[in-house]
Amino acid sequence: MLRGLYVGRFQPPHKGHVEVIKRIMKEVDELIIVVGSAQVSHTFENPFTAGERVLMLKESLVSAGVDMSKVYIIPIPDIAMNHVWPRYVTLFTPPFHVVYTGNPLVRRLFEEANFKVKGHEMILREKYSGKYIRRLMLKNDPKWEELVPEPVVKIIKEINGIERLREVASTDEIIA
Amino acid sequence: MLRGLYVGRFQPPHKGHVEVIKRIMKEVDELIIVVGSAQVSHTFENPFTAGERVLMLKESLVSAGVDMSKVYIIPIPDIAMNHVWPRYVTLFTPPFHVVYTGNPLVRRLFEEANFKVKGHEMILREKYSGKYIRRLMLKNDPKWEELVPEPVVKIIKEINGIERLREVASTDEIIA
Amino acid sequence: MLRGLYVGRFQPPHKGHVEVIKRIMKEVDELIIVVGSAQVSHTFENPFTAGERVLMLKESLVSAGVDMSKVYIIPIPDIAMNHVWPRYVTLFTPPFHVVYTGNPLVRRLFEEANFKVKGHEMILREKYSGKYIRRLMLKNDPKWEELVPEPVVKIIKEINGIERLREVASTDEIIA
Amino acid sequence: MLRGLYVGRFQPPHKGHVEVIKRIMKEVDELIIVVGSAQVSHTFENPFTAGERVLMLKESLVSAGVDMSKVYIIPIPDIAMNHVWPRYVTLFTPPFHVVYTGNPLVRRLFEEANFKVKGHEMILREKYSGKYIRRLMLKNDPKWEELVPEPVVKIIKEINGIERLREVASTDEIIA
Amino acid sequence: MLRGLYVGRFQPPHKGHVEVIKRIMKEVDELIIVVGSAQVSHTFENPFTAGERVLMLKESLVSAGVDMSKVYIIPIPDIAMNHVWPRYVTLFTPPFHVVYTGNPLVRRLFEEANFKVKGHEMILREKYSGKYIRRLMLKNDPKWEELVPEPVVKIIKEINGIERLREVASTDEIIA
Amino acid sequence: MLRGLYVGRFQPPHKGHVEVIKRIMKEVDELIIVVGSAQVSHTFENPFTAGERVLMLKESLVSAGVDMSKVYIIPIPDIAMNHVWPRYVTLFTPPFHVVYTGNPLVRRLFEEANFKVKGHEMILREKYSGKYIRRLMLKNDPKWEELVPEPVVKIIKEINGIERLREVASTDEIIA
Repeated sequence: MLRGLYVGRFQPPHKGHVEVIKRIMKEVDELIIVVGSAQVSHTFENPFTAGERVLMLKESLVSAGVDMSKVYIIPIPDIAMNHVWPRYVTLFTPPFHVVYTGNPLVRRLFEEANFKVKGHEMILREKYSGKYIRRLMLKNDPKWEELVPEPVVKIIKEINGIERLREVASTDEIIA
Repeated sequence: MLRGLYVGRFQPPHKGHVEVIKRIMKEVDELIIVVGSAQVSHTFENPFTAGERVLMLKESLVSAGVDMSKVYIIPIPDIAMNHVWPRYVTLFTPPFHVVYTGNPLVRRLFEEANFKVKGHEMILREKYSGKYIRRLMLKNDPKWEELVPEPVVKIIKEINGIERLREVASTDEIIA
Repeated sequence: MLRGLYVGRFQPPHKGHVEVIKRIMKEVDELIIVVGSAQVSHTFENPFTAGERVLMLKESLVSAGVDMSKVYIIPIPDIAMNHVWPRYVTLFTPPFHVVYTGNPLVRRLFEEANFKVKGHEMILREKYSGKYIRRLMLKNDPKWEELVPEPVVKIIKEINGIERLREVASTDEIIA
Repeated sequence: MLRGLYVGRFQPPHKGHVEVIKRIMKEVDELIIVVGSAQVSHTFENPFTAGERVLMLKESLVSAGVDMSKVYIIPIPDIAMNHVWPRYVTLFTPPFHVVYTGNPLVRRLFEEANFKVKGHEMILREKYSGKYIRRLMLKNDPKWEELVPEPVVKIIKEINGIERLREVASTDEIIA
Repeated sequence: MLRGLYVGRFQPPHKGHVEVIKRIMKEVDELIIVVGSAQVSHTFENPFTAGERVLMLKESLVSAGVDMSKVYIIPIPDIAMNHVWPRYVTLFTPPFHVVYTGNPLVRRLFEEANFKVKGHEMILREKYSGKYIRRLMLKNDPKWEELVPEPVVKIIKEINGIERLREVASTDEIIA
Repeated sequence: MLRGLYVGRFQPPHKGHVEVIKRIMKEVDELIIVVGSAQVSHTFENPFTAGERVLMLKESLVSAGVDMSKVYIIPIPDIAMNHVWPRYVTLFTPPFHVVYTGNPLVRRLFEEANFKVKGHEMILREKYSGKYIRRLMLKNDPKWEELVPEPVVKIIKEINGIERLREVASTDEIIA
């Protein structure tokens, strides 16, 4: 039995994520998807709550035909100690054997903690990037809807996500 | 669409939990299972890590035939502010409409925060209690194996859980 | 100008507190009242939120004719470092010149941090004690109403405080 | 009885704040003033401690003839979870019925948590801004003294606030 | 080069500790001594600050002729996650190859994190125990002075440690 | 007996640090060296763990002939409250009588907390600066090796420090 780990912030989940997840699941029996920076929301970099991201991910994977009995979606708040972070992740997850990431820091931290890491090839990075999608949303450019799975479009509209993004981005000074 | 929330520490998950979950799932479309006190482990009250509890729960539900595309298992670390706790739970979970709990404090906190709460009838409480099961484990009484789903027995044996429980229970003074 | 500091948990504020505050205010020009353990609520030891305690204190002092332009009521969450605590208190308060307390630990900590401390004589301690009042509430013994200022009775009834106390006290195992 | 909430960082309190508070108090019976980011001090953005800000606010309001038996000044440390923040604020405050704010993020967060929010018209924003006043202080331009209430001038001089601001602003690298 | 780790709370350091350290140093080239629960002080269980304990340890080892260029004394605050704790310890210490401990929980945690652990034989445990020494202090029984190194007697007297212990032990209810 | 305190981040320790320490030790009997921001690592600003910095400092001082029975090297994690920070430092250190620092914020904070502060003259600042050394490392310019003590070169090579620095610097977006 081989279990993999895939880490992201998913602000929001996009088609690139789903594609990567489907590819990884051909290599492993089960996959743990960590929704990182789970405590953060309502900022331009992190507009959506962890719960909203968990919901969007689940709906997108179900809609993509992924077998949810083989997937764990686990939100994890940040810990402000990079060196300790990989062990901290294992506190919240079933044991895993390989980490999938394209992020050099994540790779470094897991490798220094003696985990096996595989770099997933980033799919159409410039297109499927959370930052690019958030910028389209900010400009009210409907192209963002093509870059994310359909359930994500639906959920973001239900929670007035575009409006939220625009309001939090306009705040020059956070009061508290 | 009706989504429910069920909170527990699951130290370990037992047949009573599975029974309650199956009953709740007849009343709701989707169920969020919160694994509380997620940061704690390696004590007599909380021997297992959140990740181990997530794994045991998932395997038990799959083995009980529960449709995992309708279930969220979400570990949540404690926040030391009872009044704030229900809102804090919603940070990590999809939106929910009804809370299932037999715990008076949990009921009180959610009710004061304007959530709808339903008390689930506790099933054979004296038998299906985490504390009772941990005591059996401590005494090396194999009866505990009958009180938990089969996958839980298997996982606890794989991780030497009984040995761990006995060692952490013997420590009279925690050094750090 | 002489400013004093008085620290308590005020679970709930009682007539003894008001008496002490009035006596201190004869010795100082202004008084800072720190509502300690501000993050805690909904336990038997700490049933009321900091905000509820602030409200009860303010109403009681106004009702006792205290000049509120000479009083600061400041809720402060605990910091888990006794040695650092007095300096931490000064982060949230205007500067003060003398600390009033009957608690040996509080006296010790402020004295080691070079503050002047005066022990207030405890007024009818066995009667005017938070713990004794909470026990009366738990037993539904209406004598508690005589031990606290009238606004406290009113506020506790409005928020169903007795019911809350009884429910949180009945919880043998806190889930989260 | 109508109670309002007004949130700010008050670095330092200025005449605009006092003006807004006086206007709000015509609409409500009592006003809770939250001093946000209470844990922060000694930076260019946040030079003054929460206690100093509480003192400046109180003195300014007394000096402006505000009835202090109708005002709560409550310092609240940040919590690094935007979604949870409004509920967290209610932990430290008496219950309130309407939130006054000109900050889009604060408005958004309270509205999503089902609070009633009223935007106060910002008075002479470019003039009465904390950042502008701190910049004047940094340049040693005495014009800042006209923008804040007289007690604020007095207190800042007593604590050598200008000197502090200049020193903390000059530190390019914070050691700890 | 072989480096060892030895963990304790050292409330206070006693002759048993020094004996164990001297024995370990015959087996390793360098020794890291972790002063655990570093944030705690001024309680009966933990009367002394981490800094006081570091000072007492250093003076005791110098007085015992230990070569201080081969010893690291590192205070580490608790982290409320047992599973993560061993990795967290490595954040603050040079790399080490073997852990010396007589505490079952510490042994368990390091072993589960794949560290090599050696149980040191506890020397005259009933005599050389922090708890026993603190009880003697509380009763004003001078026998405690025989159980700790001379520099520890001197330092505890300089800081009025016995008086502190008695005061913090007498406090039935901690206010903050 | 005069004990001094010297605070730095030591990312990494360089010859300027060693020079300053040797000069201070002519003025004091014992020196406490605080390794600040101890929780941070694996960023461009803070590439090395506290433990690695403690090791590099110790080896450098031994190599420079410093008597280690007169030196304390104490890693201290940040506390996000500037006003409280000096008292917090004293929690982890033996008592000290004078603080050595060239950092205006550190000087300010200790002076406001009534400590005696002496500004050490910065030695060849433009050359001996952590930031400058990290930039040389990033450019693979071997000149950095001349700016740090020999043991630091050796340790950084052993832990693949240059490679680590380059990888963490390349990460534009931190996932967790």
